[in-house]
Amino acid sequence: MLRFEVTILGSGSASPTLSRNPSSQLLNLSESYFLIDCGEGTQIQLRKNKLSWAKIDHIFISHLHGDHYLGLLGLLQSMHLLGRKKKLHLFCFPELKEIIDIQNKYSFTVLNYEIEYHFLSNNSFDKISETKTVSVYSFPLNHRIPCVGFLFRENEGSRKIIKENLIKYNVSNAEIHKLRKGINAVDENGNEIDFTLLTEPSYQPRSYAYCSDTKYDESLLNYLKEVDVLYHESTFLTDLKDRASATYHSTAEQAALIAKKANVKKLIIGHYSARYNSLDGFLEEAGQVFNNVFLAKDGVTFKI
Amino acid sequence: MLRFEVTILGSGSASPTLSRNPSSQLLNLSESYFLIDCGEGTQIQLRKNKLSWAKIDHIFISHLHGDHYLGLLGLLQSMHLLGRKKKLHLFCFPELKEIIDIQNKYSFTVLNYEIEYHFLSNNSFDKISETKTVSVYSFPLNHRIPCVGFLFRENEGSRKIIKENLIKYNVSNAEIHKLRKGINAVDENGNEIDFTLLTEPSYQPRSYAYCSDTKYDESLLNYLKEVDVLYHESTFLTDLKDRASATYHSTAEQAALIAKKANVKKLIIGHYSARYNSLDGFLEEAGQVFNNVFLAKDGVTFKI
Repeated sequence: MLRFEVTILGSGSASPTLSRNPSSQLLNLSESYFLIDCGEGTQIQLRKNKLSWAKIDHIFISHLHGDHYLGLLGLLQSMHLLGRKKKLHLFCFPELKEIIDIQNKYSFTVLNYEIEYHFLSNNSFDKISETKTVSVYSFPLNHRIPCVGFLFRENEGSRKIIKENLIKYNVSNAEIHKLRKGINAVDENGNEIDFTLLTEPSYQPRSYAYCSDTKYDESLLNYLKEVDVLYHESTFLTDLKDRASATYHSTAEQAALIAKKANVKKLIIGHYSARYNSLDGFLEEAGQVFNNVFLAKDGVTFKI
Repeated sequence: MLRFEVTILGSGSASPTLSRNPSSQLLNLSESYFLIDCGEGTQIQLRKNKLSWAKIDHIFISHLHGDHYLGLLGLLQSMHLLGRKKKLHLFCFPELKEIIDIQNKYSFTVLNYEIEYHFLSNNSFDKISETKTVSVYSFPLNHRIPCVGFLFRENEGSRKIIKENLIKYNVSNAEIHKLRKGINAVDENGNEIDFTLLTEPSYQPRSYAYCSDTKYDESLLNYLKEVDVLYHESTFLTDLKDRASATYHSTAEQAALIAKKANVKKLIIGHYSARYNSLDGFLEEAGQVFNNVFLAKDGVTFKI
């Protein structure tokens, strides 16, 4: 199985604390890095966790509240200073391009690498990227300003060769390349042999969904059904349910309800309000609804 | 003497490191806080050093390279979230207002306090602020983009009363208020008594100059003569003197030369390139030219 894991770079919300940076996560799929949101201080968090900026070719920004993107300018600048030449793919709302352009204009900066912008839509489920290993989708969240979640679905892996059947069916090793892709083989006598006789499916492709800032909204279930790992914000505890709703955020219990109804395998919660020193209440309230829940904490890595 | 000190919040340059944040300093003059530059992560550095944001009413941004202002947006936002109502004075080039406005526009943010902008000029020595305790001036630096230094001059303090002379000259306590301001008193018989007989000057007003990013330029001596403490950037060591000049930065030796020629009392150097792990070379090279030199390090406070 390919390595597929997510490292929490920031688990805090709008007011960062000494232990909780604003939102950012790094998804590592077989050493390709996908950066999801980029709050202030993200470049330092990457350094602290020994995660190389050079491996990041895709950055996804869910919305334009500062705690989700204010670290981006510094990161782009540092990539430039450290000699990046490779193209960077940036998935964001078009207004972010305007913000980046104006800052580069006034600092007289011309980046020595290309940014290819992929603009997001706030009202549909869209496939926004496909690499060799993963397909990425965006979907609308229910927040105060335009905001999307991201769904990462691993692509179907190469099929696994059943070695003893190659011998049994007189199929040479030269056919392996086709078989791995699910194409029928030809045996040494020129007969076609069905690939399902010679291979078996590799592991079940895995999925990760990221819901940055959103109020409780069951329409999200359309996109989250059966995902392996769901990150869902939980800014407040239940005693501040009204405040959560008024500010278009969720409680820990609500995040767990979404996880339960979507029948996901594992839930990670985060984006805690700075008013909470201890996070015990979050685990407790979410745990009463859904039993496989984990707390996002800065620097912690979860396998998917 | 009033408390007058500067805390280094960031001693690094464009690429921050784990031990050196980008530029920011907090000047504390009798518990009034003046923030000078505001690189990414400054709000966290303030928290880490237990310096209350609420005491900051004046912010000075020397120029629009990201390592000198990218932390400002997050700080303004956090002040807003924590309920600031007091006016904030922001000293900067006009382009920064445009950058702040566009970011607030796209995050649908209306700050619940007023920012009063004071726009800087890049080609003159200007008095830009005067409070009860300090006068602040800006002056042009020699950098790739418009950039200024700041000079903080403590105002003349109240004169010190010579108590035994009040008795000797038959002057009542009611006259003290006038005397402190240097106005002549009237004795109990109605005679005018010269204030110099009844008071003595308080201590010599102190001064602090901040030169953020600049190449070696002796025209700075016009503004820096005899200051008590000079902060002057030193991005490189002498072996990279050509690079310093090409990028409009200074070496440690050049910073010390300015200090020596301006006859300042104390020099602080900083803004070290990320390529240097050890700072010993900086102290050594500067020390050969000027003998009262100190290294800026994150979290260190210098008395002025």
